[in-house]
Formats: sequence, structure tokens, C-alpha cells
Amino acid sequence: MTRIAHLDEIRAVVDPAAVIDAVERGFVWYSQGKVDVPPVGLLHFDDPPGDVHIKYGRIIGDGVYVVKIASGFYENPDRGLPAGDGSMLLYDARTGELLAIMLDRGWLTEVRTGAAGAVAARHLAPRRPGRIGVIGAGSQARFQVRALAHVTECREVLVWGRRRDRLEAYRDELAPEGWRVEITEDIEEVPAVCRLIVTVTPSEEPLLFADQIRPGTHITAVGSDNLGKQELDPMILAEADGVVADSIAQCTHHGECAAAVRGGLLDPARILELGRVAADPALRRGSDEEVTVADLTGVAVQDIQVAKMAWAALGSS
Amino acid sequence: MTRIAHLDEIRAVVDPAAVIDAVERGFVWYSQGKVDVPPVGLLHFDDPPGDVHIKYGRIIGDGVYVVKIASGFYENPDRGLPAGDGSMLLYDARTGELLAIMLDRGWLTEVRTGAAGAVAARHLAPRRPGRIGVIGAGSQARFQVRALAHVTECREVLVWGRRRDRLEAYRDELAPEGWRVEITEDIEEVPAVCRLIVTVTPSEEPLLFADQIRPGTHITAVGSDNLGKQELDPMILAEADGVVADSIAQCTHHGECAAAVRGGLLDPARILELGRVAADPALRRGSDEEVTVADLTGVAVQDIQVAKMAWAALGSS
Repeated sequence: MTRIAHLDEIRAVVDPAAVIDAVERGFVWYSQGKVDVPPVGLLHFDDPPGDVHIKYGRIIGDGVYVVKIASGFYENPDRGLPAGDGSMLLYDARTGELLAIMLDRGWLTEVRTGAAGAVAARHLAPRRPGRIGVIGAGSQARFQVRALAHVTECREVLVWGRRRDRLEAYRDELAPEGWRVEITEDIEEVPAVCRLIVTVTPSEEPLLFADQIRPGTHITAVGSDNLGKQELDPMILAEADGVVADSIAQCTHHGECAAAVRGGLLDPARILELGRVAADPALRRGSDEEVTVADLTGVAVQDIQVAKMAWAALGSS
Repeated sequence: MTRIAHLDEIRAVVDPAAVIDAVERGFVWYSQGKVDVPPVGLLHFDDPPGDVHIKYGRIIGDGVYVVKIASGFYENPDRGLPAGDGSMLLYDARTGELLAIMLDRGWLTEVRTGAAGAVAARHLAPRRPGRIGVIGAGSQARFQVRALAHVTECREVLVWGRRRDRLEAYRDELAPEGWRVEITEDIEEVPAVCRLIVTVTPSEEPLLFADQIRPGTHITAVGSDNLGKQELDPMILAEADGVVADSIAQCTHHGECAAAVRGGLLDPARILELGRVAADPALRRGSDEEVTVADLTGVAVQDIQVAKMAWAALGSS
């Protein structure tokens, strides 16, 4: 019998802090070649504009496989609906039986994406970041900061966005959770005072530039999940001491790395995969003066890991 | 709110006869380039052996899109489970909202595959087939014959298989539905007396050969749904007066056509697409002496059409 779980039940049992460790293990296995994740399935819509991603696969030897179907329909907010939606299906890898349908409305994706940011910061962020800089004030910009609470003691956030009302909403939502949030509409302030920066926008043009980045800064770029998107000046990657990708294959196709590699500014051989960095302390940040960049495009192994965790938690709840 | 429908409800409201017309319209649109069906997603398992197919897409302009996830785990019958399973998800193409989950256990796939055989026979089978020959005695071999009831008056079936117990079970199941079923373990009998033949096996080697095929015969090959599978001697296609494919792209990759094209025995330009044949009476069987072959590998547009029909029927039930 297929277990059908709705968002409320899932949110009640899944511990986002535990997801960070599960996602980290997933990245390690992915970089060791122990994960079968075929190319992402894509459907594109023009009118109204939308994208559907199908991410699926399994960890070799696991008893289950996972299929995630996620969508972004960008005019939904005008209709009073969230832009993003999604669900995950978890199957028995010995029989094909559909064990569970997680109707999580995209929440598990938000959590696993935040978790990836925390994994990157755990191994790459400077010990004393000053403040956490957040470029973008949308939903995932909240999940990124919440996940960082588990890997840094810093509770000071400076958030940049184009709309003051959205910045105020961001601040008002995070303040009760123990964050001291300042808002700015001047993006240059962020690299000037923050040495742990997360970019979380759908931008198609660079927002941060190399000459703004101070020594000792780590940047995690989360927004470039598709062709055409870009948040960082490729010179930042060219000059960085370390460039890390969740998936070298994906990031050289459509992430921040892609723009830098195509422009001849980044030798692909210089890119390290996050799962390798997580497994090998020698590959982590070397000094408080290094500049590092993590390019996160989202890998199905994150979905597999978070779906397994939800399935286990639902079973014992 | 997502509608979750189980097999019993779906079977109670979906009329397989109506699916034939819906699938035919789908093929016509597909051949007119009005359907967006990206490459099939695949996951393969070795231990135990299994395959998962993700077929998805939408008809341009439709208000919905469909994702089907189907599996075959070939040792399941040893565990008392059916080898095939599957479900279909139907979404709002304007918002990404998940409208319905059809937990049909693969039944809709069986029906839509049978319907494709009926579409092929409607336009290509001789008017008087003598008997319907069926190569294979599994589940889909039943659905093929049931669908043919809507496009031919013939009710005589000769079924071949390797195991007498399965042949008898086949006969005993179809006889009460109005079919006169004879069984044989001698495959040569089938082309000798039948001029409408359906091959429905997972064979990886030809089962029927060119010198066995009499003038006026139509063969629908359903089994070659994946690389390595083959049911017909490529010379049958080489010598046929008409070769029709549900999808030229798919059939020249892994259907019966693929083997004939690779062997230099079939000019790909000779292959007609089923949707073109259905739309143009001039492309149908020309005389009672022609030999025709339909190569059906299964196209996502069939899943889209049957899922839409189930969704509409569930809504009004």
C-alpha cells in the first residue's frame, strides 16, 4: 500500500539539521561514483512561463529509488499561488513498488537545497565571517540562512534585494528565529562587510564583481539552476583560491562555472567536487585569507537523501 | 487538492474503446509535431533485474501535462507480484499544480498499448484476416486482442506460446469474452492461417520469418520496447509493402525497424508514421494482397491521452 504523505506531516517529522548530514553523505557517494543519476528531465512552457524538472536516481545498493517532479511557474504569485511546487516518489528498488508519495509542495527541495549550502559553508566558510550576506530575499534565501545556523555561530545577516517590502518581510520573518537582520538596497555593502555570502536569485547577469570581494570571503551561489542564469562575475571564479561544484558535470554545463569555463577564465581541472571536499579535510579552506566559491546547481542525490529521511521519519512517527 | 485514484476506480470509469480514438488523435498530433515528448527517462537495475521508464510530455496548447513512471521487475512473479507496475501524474500546465495521481498499477499502460495495436489494425489489417494470430500469451497479449474487438469483426484467435499452461490460461480467460481461441506450440501455424498477427513477447531473437508470411498479412509488433529486443526477421520489413512506426525516431533507435535499418535492409525513408497513416486514407493498406508491418515502441502521447481520459472520467463519475 502506497503511503501518501502531505506537507504538514512531512514538516512535522523531518529535521532540517539532520538533512545536512544526509545530504553531505549523498555528495560524498556521488563524487565516489556510487550514485546513478541520469540526466534531468525537462519540460518548458511559454504561456504562461514555467519549467518542470524531473530528477531521479538511486544510490547503488540502496533498497529504494526516488523520482522528484518539481515545477516553477513564475506568474503563480499573481494568482496567489507559490511559484514553486513539487513532490517526491519513493520506490522499492527490488520490486518497483511505489512505497510513498511525498506531497511536500516543494518543501523538501527547499530543505535539501538549504542543506547543500550548509555543507559548502561547513567546509569552505571562514571561521569568523563577520556577517552572513544574502543576495536575494525569496523563499530559498530563508532556507539558506536557517541551514547555516547549524554550521556557523554567526547570527548577523545583511540581506540585499531590489524591493524594500520584500526585504522587510524577510527581516520580520527571520528576526523571531534569533537572527539579527539588516537590510540594504545597495549591493556593494554586502561584500564590504560579509565574508560568507550566499547568492539566491534567478539573475541572468552577474550581481557581484571580482573587485568587490575581500580576502577570506566564501561565496555560495545557489541561483544558477538552469541555462542562462548567472549571479557571479566569472572573474570571481578566475581569481578564487578554490572553486567547488556540487556536480562538475552539471556546473560546467549551466552553473557559474559554465560561464567562466566558456570564457576561458577557469580551467575545468581546477574545479573540485563538493563530495570530495567533504570527504577530505586537506581540500577544505586552507587559510583565513583565501577566497572560495561553491557553485550549487542541485543534484538528484540530494532529493534521494531527503526523501529517504522523510520516509524513515514518517514510518516511525 | 490532488485527486488520488486507485485502480478499481479507474477501471470502473475508463472505456477502453474510447481510448482507441483518443490514442489515434494523439498519434496524429504527434506526427504533426504538436506534441512535446522529451527523451524517455531510464533507470536500470541488475540485482534483481528491473527497468524503470519515465515517459512525460504534453500536447501543445493542452491545459495539462502528464508524467508516467512505469517499472518492470522480472523476478516479481516469483514473489507473487506482477512484473509490471506504474502510475500516472497529471498536472495543470498553467500552474504546475498536481491535479491527479492515477495509481493504476500499469493498467492504463496496458490499455493504451492495446489501443495502439487497434489503431494500427484499423488502418492496416486486411478486411478478412481469417484468424487473429497472437505470438505470446502474457498480459498485453490479452489487451491487444480485446482492443482488436473494436476494429475487426473477426473473433477467431490462434495463440502461440512456449508453455502449454499459460496458453490454456489465455484461452480460458478470453473464451468467456466471446473469443474462439485455439492454442498452438508450433509457431509456423500462426502465419499459415492468420492474416492479422500481433507479436507480444520480450524476445531478443526473431520469431517470425519472411518466407512464412503470406500475401495480405498485417503484423503488429509490440514487444520491442527497448534496445536488444526483436521479434521479426528484418527481411519481413525489407519485403513488406508498407512499414509503419508509432514514432520513426524511436523505432529506428530500438524497434523492429532499427534492426532492419542497421542491417541495410530498410531505407528509413520508406517508414511511415502511424499518425500520418491515420490522418490520410491514401496511406492505408492499398489491396488485400499487400504485406504490412506496424512497429510499436510506445510513445508518451499515448500516456498523455489515456491519463486525460481517465481524469475526465473520474471528474464526472
